[in-house]
Amino acid sequence: MGSSLPVIAITVGEPAGIGPEISLLAAWELRGQVRPVLIGDAAYLAMLAHDLDRNIRLMGVSQQALRHNGLPGCGKDQITVIDSPLMAHVVAGQLDPRNGRAVLATLDVAIETIQQGWCDAMVTAPLQKSTINDAGIAFTGHTEYLAQRTGSAQVVMMLACEASDHLPQALRVALATTHLALRDVPNAIQFDHLLRTLQIIHSDLQEKFGISKPKIFVTGLNPHAGENGYLGREEIDVINPVIQHARSAGIDARGAFPADTLFQQKYLKDADCVLAMYHDQGLSVLKHASFGLGVNITLGLPLIRTSVDHGTALDLAKLGTGLADANSMCVAIRIAAEMVARQAASRGATPSPNGLAK
Amino acid sequence: MGSSLPVIAITVGEPAGIGPEISLLAAWELRGQVRPVLIGDAAYLAMLAHDLDRNIRLMGVSQQALRHNGLPGCGKDQITVIDSPLMAHVVAGQLDPRNGRAVLATLDVAIETIQQGWCDAMVTAPLQKSTINDAGIAFTGHTEYLAQRTGSAQVVMMLACEASDHLPQALRVALATTHLALRDVPNAIQFDHLLRTLQIIHSDLQEKFGISKPKIFVTGLNPHAGENGYLGREEIDVINPVIQHARSAGIDARGAFPADTLFQQKYLKDADCVLAMYHDQGLSVLKHASFGLGVNITLGLPLIRTSVDHGTALDLAKLGTGLADANSMCVAIRIAAEMVARQAASRGATPSPNGLAK
Repeated sequence: MGSSLPVIAITVGEPAGIGPEISLLAAWELRGQVRPVLIGDAAYLAMLAHDLDRNIRLMGVSQQALRHNGLPGCGKDQITVIDSPLMAHVVAGQLDPRNGRAVLATLDVAIETIQQGWCDAMVTAPLQKSTINDAGIAFTGHTEYLAQRTGSAQVVMMLACEASDHLPQALRVALATTHLALRDVPNAIQFDHLLRTLQIIHSDLQEKFGISKPKIFVTGLNPHAGENGYLGREEIDVINPVIQHARSAGIDARGAFPADTLFQQKYLKDADCVLAMYHDQGLSVLKHASFGLGVNITLGLPLIRTSVDHGTALDLAKLGTGLADANSMCVAIRIAAEMVARQAASRGATPSPNGLAK
Repeated sequence: MGSSLPVIAITVGEPAGIGPEISLLAAWELRGQVRPVLIGDAAYLAMLAHDLDRNIRLMGVSQQALRHNGLPGCGKDQITVIDSPLMAHVVAGQLDPRNGRAVLATLDVAIETIQQGWCDAMVTAPLQKSTINDAGIAFTGHTEYLAQRTGSAQVVMMLACEASDHLPQALRVALATTHLALRDVPNAIQFDHLLRTLQIIHSDLQEKFGISKPKIFVTGLNPHAGENGYLGREEIDVINPVIQHARSAGIDARGAFPADTLFQQKYLKDADCVLAMYHDQGLSVLKHASFGLGVNITLGLPLIRTSVDHGTALDLAKLGTGLADANSMCVAIRIAAEMVARQAASRGATPSPNGLAK
């Protein structure tokens, strides 16, 4: 890993959006706590950095040099950039499919940096799915792409936020289903998939979050968790049996609880993670509670990956005006660094000396 | 109305639960701001009051006397109780179907007190549906019963909470569907019903909340509000056309917005009410944000009715120990009183001189 600081690969995302800007700002802000390694077009990032803050210093490295010599050392007040060149001139706010393939290439580079041991974790800035699809590449999202490229049969999307003035403690919400029409959700709640979801959450909370006996609170699918079958049977037929099965295998899963009850603070305080059955049931609360500082974490991958929970904000991208808010990106990087330290500890290695653990 | 204070009828709910206790405590606490009129078994409430706080003084009135003479005057440090006798001895925490019919009778009395002009609004403590059903009476809930008894073709369930340390401003969430299995929700989102829902919210926010031009933010049914049809078509086929139709009729409805975006504080601050498509989409956030102080308000009735947002808490009912938390009941009563004042103002009458309006 070549550094006493956790080394975080950061893909800068859609160049016409706020991704490159928030990546630069966050990397610069956190450069004493992590070693940030941006992956994007070095020339474009240099121009942008100059407009944002003339103090920001970048050190470019080509992919060829990287593969030949590994990740070079870097001064404390420099940000490493692995050059992953764009194909077309960037105009803020204007999507250009000619850059779609280049955006995707940054993800491949990031995976490689981790597999080669150059970096410890990856953080992704938002990209625009349509740009990649318009470039002729079938692409449904970061999460699915990373699962496929790392040979992961099933992954779990989890959003997390840290404690704040508005929230007495950290909140983590994982999803049993993600981007599905609501009409298709009930039939997607299946025994094997849901059980595997619980297993992934359990083992990742242990290994990447350092929680020895994670408590996972599971919501019902229906209002009032089905009210004993009066408001739907999925709890009786699938969810409760999965919870029982998981408990008999040593996973501390509990429920199924009515979602509107469970998300009250007095119950949340006992949960290490909530497993919600579908997108709006879980994420509406989390994004409300996070005040824009939610972080998306992919569980079940053989690597650590976090992301901001917002989009490309094309309307805010003004190239170097610094209007975009990099706070969520900073939290995504900090949480990735904490996970690196936890994972090292759970593997018996010496954790990072920089004390990033909470 | 016979009093300068708003007169609030309070049905005390399931006698074996915390309803009678929180009703007494809240009525006593707020007796200087409203005139509370409890509706329940006078002898039982007298015993309970004695155990809770020997200072509480009750003044019982029979239904016969009420119908003959109207609501009598009452000292400032007394609580009026309209006697609505139970049939069986109450044991805390133990449901008894012999009392089912008596619990239901309190609702009829409350409606009558408003229709006769003796009271200005009604607040309901929680009851246990099963007790009433076990007594041989088909009953699905307060809201449906009140709709039927007042001849209201459609009503809307709205939950609200006040601003707090955790919430910069009041939050109101209405539901397009309520207690339905999730599987049945998509087909229940129908043009006429949804349009009528918006009309009811609009007119009640004007008349009962004093908001002259209410802004109603509408969620989509699907994640990301369907993402242009990729994740479901109900937004395109039903919800957006309803919003357009409502707007052309002068209702400031907006959306459909992705629920997880809309419930972020920065968007909520512009909304007078959120219309969510189903139970867990809206109430999970509201109950999280309300810290147990949410209030259930039925819109579309020809009377003002609020309620706590929690259940009977049979496990907490210890008869007179004062363990139950009456805060939600207090908020329900305060909000009902504010609605009385707003409604009086919107009808051109003199609002209550007690300054309950926020």
